[in-house]
Amino acid sequence: MTVTLTAFERSPDGGMGLARDTRVRWALEEAGQAYEVRPVSFSAMKEPAHLAAQPFGQIPVYQEGDLVLFESGAIIFHIASHHSGLFPDDANARARAITWMFAALNTVEPPILELITVKFLEGDKPWNKDRLPLVFDRIRHRLTQLSARLGDADWLDGAFSAGDLLMVSVLLRTRPSGILNEFPSLAAYVARGEARPAYKRAFAAQLAFNTAQPAAS
Amino acid sequence: MTVTLTAFERSPDGGMGLARDTRVRWALEEAGQAYEVRPVSFSAMKEPAHLAAQPFGQIPVYQEGDLVLFESGAIIFHIASHHSGLFPDDANARARAITWMFAALNTVEPPILELITVKFLEGDKPWNKDRLPLVFDRIRHRLTQLSARLGDADWLDGAFSAGDLLMVSVLLRTRPSGILNEFPSLAAYVARGEARPAYKRAFAAQLAFNTAQPAAS
Repeated sequence: MTVTLTAFERSPDGGMGLARDTRVRWALEEAGQAYEVRPVSFSAMKEPAHLAAQPFGQIPVYQEGDLVLFESGAIIFHIASHHSGLFPDDANARARAITWMFAALNTVEPPILELITVKFLEGDKPWNKDRLPLVFDRIRHRLTQLSARLGDADWLDGAFSAGDLLMVSVLLRTRPSGILNEFPSLAAYVARGEARPAYKRAFAAQLAFNTAQPAAS
Repeated sequence: MTVTLTAFERSPDGGMGLARDTRVRWALEEAGQAYEVRPVSFSAMKEPAHLAAQPFGQIPVYQEGDLVLFESGAIIFHIASHHSGLFPDDANARARAITWMFAALNTVEPPILELITVKFLEGDKPWNKDRLPLVFDRIRHRLTQLSARLGDADWLDGAFSAGDLLMVSVLLRTRPSGILNEFPSLAAYVARGEARPAYKRAFAAQLAFNTAQPAAS
């Protein structure tokens, strides 16, 4: 059954791999699943046809036959549940991998998303400069805790899982800020993620997609 | 097998049901599962014994025999997977219910969590008063989209599911702000959640826990 994924026609990051389709591409590559990508323009994302599949007007949308899913966390859960490579076999280990998926998205990502607020939504506000250090401190607080838990392990709980895939993806969002360099073990953890062949294929695919020249008309 | 849940010794909300143990209590009540609660003080939450189970120093932690989980989303997923009442039987409908779980936690809750930042973390900052309307506007943007999707349905996708449980729980966090009153269909949706007998039992249990008098010493 063909899998189709929507992605930004042109990602706002210009192909840095920070848009949420990259996480899903990575999961599909880890699972060895082929997929097609359907670009969506910013104007089309606000149209009823897109909102019917993605009520918050975001990407990615995942389509596989009759099944239409949104939310990258849920899509990655679906892929990990139906293919090997992203969840351990042991039931308790699998529940812990799912815990790390939620930790990445509900505990570690929210303070990191504030960087988007600072940069794009409040970039012109008079308080922005004074407020940024507080935002960084809240991110540091989470990264300190995460770093303590990771210790000198390669991955968060045994073998690489969908939990690591999401945590690395979330941490990558901090890279433009440079804050990851303050946490060498987390920087190395992210580098291990980026070194995986599946990540490299996913990154290259989104980069090619975002830098492709439109056909001459 | 006995299920044990950690909760704040005294919740910062004084028993309004906004702490994350309430969501898990609700899921356990929907599933008809008994549980015990172990209180954790704010100082104990920073100790190694707690951090070994919850690396971010939060509540709740869920223990069931050898299995120790954190992140309320992951705990509720675990409960919903092992008992009836929170996930539909149909595989595609179940994948969509999981989508709503992630949407509640990764798309709707992050802008709502900014209210905590405004109230507690930046309450004394000179920009706080001017910034609050922007935070409210970002919440309104999400609630407008959610309201459009819900339409005149009772629940987000067919029967009540773990997705609704989390979405109602997330929306409840906006109640002290009054913003929910601007969205009558969402206010009614939340009221339907609160009217469920399982929610009422969970709410009453956390209220009793948070208002219990300490034993005379």
